Amino acid sequence: MKIIWFKYFLFSLEAINQTKTEMKRRKFIKNTSVIGAAMGLPINLKLNKLNVAVIGSGLRGQSHIGLLLQRNDCNVVAVAEPNDKMLEMTRTLFGKREQTQPKYYSNGNKDYLEMLEKEDLDLVIISTPWKWHTEMAVACLKKNIYTGLEVSGAFSLEECWDLVEAQENSKTHLYFLENVCFRKDVMAILNMVRNDLFGELIHLECGYQHDLRGVKFNDGKSAYGSGVEFGNNGFSESSWRTEHSLHRNGDLYPTHGIGPVAQYININRGNRFLYINSVASKARGLHNYIVEHEKGGPDHPNASLDFKLGDKVTSFIKCNNGETVVLHHDTNLPRPYSLGFRVQGTKGLWMDVNKSIHIEGMSKAHRWESQEEYLKQYDHPLWNRYEQDAEGAGHGGMDFFLINSLIEHTKRKQIPCFDVYDAATWMAITALSEKSIATGSSPQAFPDFTRGHWVTRKNDFALGNEY
Amino acid sequence: MKIIWFKYFLFSLEAINQTKTEMKRRKFIKNTSVIGAAMGLPINLKLNKLNVAVIGSGLRGQSHIGLLLQRNDCNVVAVAEPNDKMLEMTRTLFGKREQTQPKYYSNGNKDYLEMLEKEDLDLVIISTPWKWHTEMAVACLKKNIYTGLEVSGAFSLEECWDLVEAQENSKTHLYFLENVCFRKDVMAILNMVRNDLFGELIHLECGYQHDLRGVKFNDGKSAYGSGVEFGNNGFSESSWRTEHSLHRNGDLYPTHGIGPVAQYININRGNRFLYINSVASKARGLHNYIVEHEKGGPDHPNASLDFKLGDKVTSFIKCNNGETVVLHHDTNLPRPYSLGFRVQGTKGLWMDVNKSIHIEGMSKAHRWESQEEYLKQYDHPLWNRYEQDAEGAGHGGMDFFLINSLIEHTKRKQIPCFDVYDAATWMAITALSEKSIATGSSPQAFPDFTRGHWVTRKNDFALGNEY
Repeated sequence: MKIIWFKYFLFSLEAINQTKTEMKRRKFIKNTSVIGAAMGLPINLKLNKLNVAVIGSGLRGQSHIGLLLQRNDCNVVAVAEPNDKMLEMTRTLFGKREQTQPKYYSNGNKDYLEMLEKEDLDLVIISTPWKWHTEMAVACLKKNIYTGLEVSGAFSLEECWDLVEAQENSKTHLYFLENVCFRKDVMAILNMVRNDLFGELIHLECGYQHDLRGVKFNDGKSAYGSGVEFGNNGFSESSWRTEHSLHRNGDLYPTHGIGPVAQYININRGNRFLYINSVASKARGLHNYIVEHEKGGPDHPNASLDFKLGDKVTSFIKCNNGETVVLHHDTNLPRPYSLGFRVQGTKGLWMDVNKSIHIEGMSKAHRWESQEEYLKQYDHPLWNRYEQDAEGAGHGGMDFFLINSLIEHTKRKQIPCFDVYDAATWMAITALSEKSIATGSSPQAFPDFTRGHWVTRKNDFALGNEY
Repeated sequence: MKIIWFKYFLFSLEAINQTKTEMKRRKFIKNTSVIGAAMGLPINLKLNKLNVAVIGSGLRGQSHIGLLLQRNDCNVVAVAEPNDKMLEMTRTLFGKREQTQPKYYSNGNKDYLEMLEKEDLDLVIISTPWKWHTEMAVACLKKNIYTGLEVSGAFSLEECWDLVEAQENSKTHLYFLENVCFRKDVMAILNMVRNDLFGELIHLECGYQHDLRGVKFNDGKSAYGSGVEFGNNGFSESSWRTEHSLHRNGDLYPTHGIGPVAQYININRGNRFLYINSVASKARGLHNYIVEHEKGGPDHPNASLDFKLGDKVTSFIKCNNGETVVLHHDTNLPRPYSLGFRVQGTKGLWMDVNKSIHIEGMSKAHRWESQEEYLKQYDHPLWNRYEQDAEGAGHGGMDFFLINSLIEHTKRKQIPCFDVYDAATWMAITALSEKSIATGSSPQAFPDFTRGHWVTRKNDFALGNEY
C-alpha cells in the first residue's frame, strides 16, 4: 500500500489537468484499488475529483445536476437524455451556472450505453422513469462504474435479483438514492432511537401520502395541475408515472417511508423483513379528477379509463426481530402531504402527523408533548454540521445530504449506506404488494437478497457527522 | 291496534303503583306486543317505566346504574353480582342516591339465572367479564327480556352465531352497548359524512390505543397502577382482563374503533366486511411493566410469565363496497390514549390524532385545517339537544347518550341501532384476528351473520335528535 500511496501522491503533486493523462491516472487508480480489494488490503485511495454522468436529466436529474455543480469535487462530464425540452432545460442550467457543457447523449433511450462505452466515469446517477432503472443500473455496474440509482418500486422479484447479481459481479457499488433517510426530523429520531429514548422498537408506520393528481395529469407543457393529459400527451412525470396508476394495483412508491424505517430497525443488518400483506381500496380519485377538471369533463377520452390503482393501498410487514411496520400509499385523493411516520418502542413513541412525542418518565403519563424540543436536543450531528450548506437544496435540504453522501462514498469507493440489498428489499415491496392484492391479501414472503449476510452486516448509516 | 292502545291508555290513566297489578300490566303489554309483531302490525306500545336489572355491578355496571338512577323512566329492581366488594360499592351507590335498594343476586356467577327466573324485567344490562357475555345474553334473550350487552371481542365465530340464533329465536332484541358511536366528535363526523363533506368514503382507520398497563395490574385493592397483580390477586379489570393478554394474541378489543366506522360506511346495512388480515408485534410491554414496577421486579412470580398478546396488533379489513379499514390495538406500552380515527373520502379526510380536517375546495390545497370549526358547524343534533344533560356522564358524556338510547329503544321495543348482527360482526374481529395471526396473517373471511339481509337493511342510527 505504501508504494501505491506514494505513486498517488506523486500524481497529486503534478496537478495534471490534461484529459488524456488524467484518464490514465484514473484508470491506474481504479486498477490498483481493485488489486487492493482483491488482496483484502484496506483501500485508502480516495479520488479527489469525480467524473460524473447523469442518465435522465428531467426535473429530478436537473435537481441533482444543480447540486453537483455547486461542488468542487466533481465534474458533470456527460448527460444522457432523449427528450428535447429536458435537454434544452439542462443546457440552460449549465449556461446559467457558467459551467462547461457536458457531452450530451440524446439519440434515443439507449444512447446512455454509448455514453458508458465512451466516457471515463467515476459515477453515474440514474434519474429516469422507473421502468428503466434496473436495466440502466445493471449496465453501469457491468462497466464497474459507481452507480447512484433513484428510488422506485420493482415490477418483479426477478428484477431485484438482477440488481443484486449485477452488483455481486461488479467491482463497484450501487447507492440507492433514498433522500428521506436524510430528512432533518427523521435523522433526529434516528439519533433518539440510537440513544434508546424509545426503548426496544415494537411498531413502526410510514408511507407515501401525497396528492399527486396534479402531477399525474397536466397539459403537456407545464408540470403541475394544468390539465388532464398524461402519457404521450403529458409533460414530465405525467408522461410516464401515470401509466403505473392505470395498469397496476399495489404500493407503487414504498421507499420514502420504508427507507427511514429500515434505518431505525436495522433491516438487512441484524434484522430483515419476513412477509408483507397488502389491501387496496376502490379507485375513484383519478377518474373524478379528470371528470371535474375544467380541461377534462365526462366526455374527455381519459374519463373512460379504468384506473387500477386503489386510491389507498395499505400494507403491513412482519420483521424477523418481531417488529411490525404499516405502510400507507395514498396518491389519488385530496389530502395534505404526509409520510405518516410512527416510531414506537417500549418506552414511548413519535408520530409525525401530530408532530408529537411521548416518552415514559419524561412526558406526563398518557399525554403527548410537542416534538420540537426533542428534535432540537437530538438534532443529528450531520444536520448540526451542514444545515447551512443544505439551505435551498431540494426537499427541505435533504437532497444536499444525499448527494454529499453519494459523492463522498464514491470518492472512497465505499459500500453505500443504502446498498443493492436495500434497493432490492425496498423495491420488492411493490412487486410483493401487487401479488398480495392480486391474491386477496395473502401474505408474501420477502426473499433474503443478502443470502444470509443480513445476520452479520452492521448498520453504519450516519454514525458520525462526516457524510 | 286501536283496542290495544285504548287498553294501554286506561292503564296509564289509573297510574297503578302496586307491584302486583303493575306486573300484570307489564305481562299484558308484552303479550299484546308480541301478538302485534306476529301479526306484522306496527307496535306503537311504549312502556313508560322500565324494570331494569344489571348483571355485573363492577365499576362499569355501577357507572350504568348511576345513569339509570338519574332517570324517572326506570327502576333498577335487581342486581346480580357475586363479588363482595363490588356489592358493597353498589349498595353504597343506591344509598347515596337515596334510592330503594334492588334485589341482590350474589350467590355465585350463575345466580343471575335465578334473577331472570324470579324478576319481572323489561331490560337487563350485562356488564360482566368478557367470557360471560354470550352465555348471559343468550339466557336473557331466551327469557324474551330486552338485553343491553356491554362490548367485547368474541372467542370464536360459533359464539357469534349463538348470539344471532338466540336473537332470532327470541321475541325481543339485543342492544350492543358501543358508547363511542355517541362520542361528540365521532357524531359530528357522522353528520359530515351524511352531508357528503368527505365525498364517497374510501379508507378508514380506527382502533383502541390505550396504555392499560395500570389497568391490567394493581395491588388487588385499588384499581389503577397500584401493583403488578392480576387474576385472583387482582382487583376490578385486572382480575379478569389480564388473562386474555396472557393467553391470547389478536385484536382483543375492536368495537370502540369499529363501531363508529361501521356507522360511517353502513356495515350490515348495504355494505359488509369481507375479510380481515392481522399481524402482531412481539410482546414486551407487560413483562417490562412487572419487572420495572416498584412492587414487582425480576424475581416477582409474574415476571416469569410469557404474555402472548403482541404489544401492537394491526389489522386491515376489506369491505364489500370497496372501502378499506385499518384497526389498531395497542394496550401494553406507554402512550397517550387515542382511537386513531381517520375518515377519508374522495373530497377530503379527517384524522383525530392531529385533530385536523382537509376538504377540497374549502381547505387550502395540500394543507390541514383545525377540526374545531367543522365540529362546531356539524355538531350532531343529538348533542346539540342533550349536551347539558350529558354533562358529568362517563367517558366525556357519551355514556349518557348510550343509556338514553338503550332505554328509549327498550321502551319502544325497537330494533336497536347496534343490534345482534352488529354485535356478532364486530365481536368476530377478535376471533378472526387471532386466527389470522395464528396462520401467518392469512386473510379470514367474515361470515354474513345477517344471512343476506345486509343488502336491504337501512342505517337508522341517530338520524334525528330523538335518541
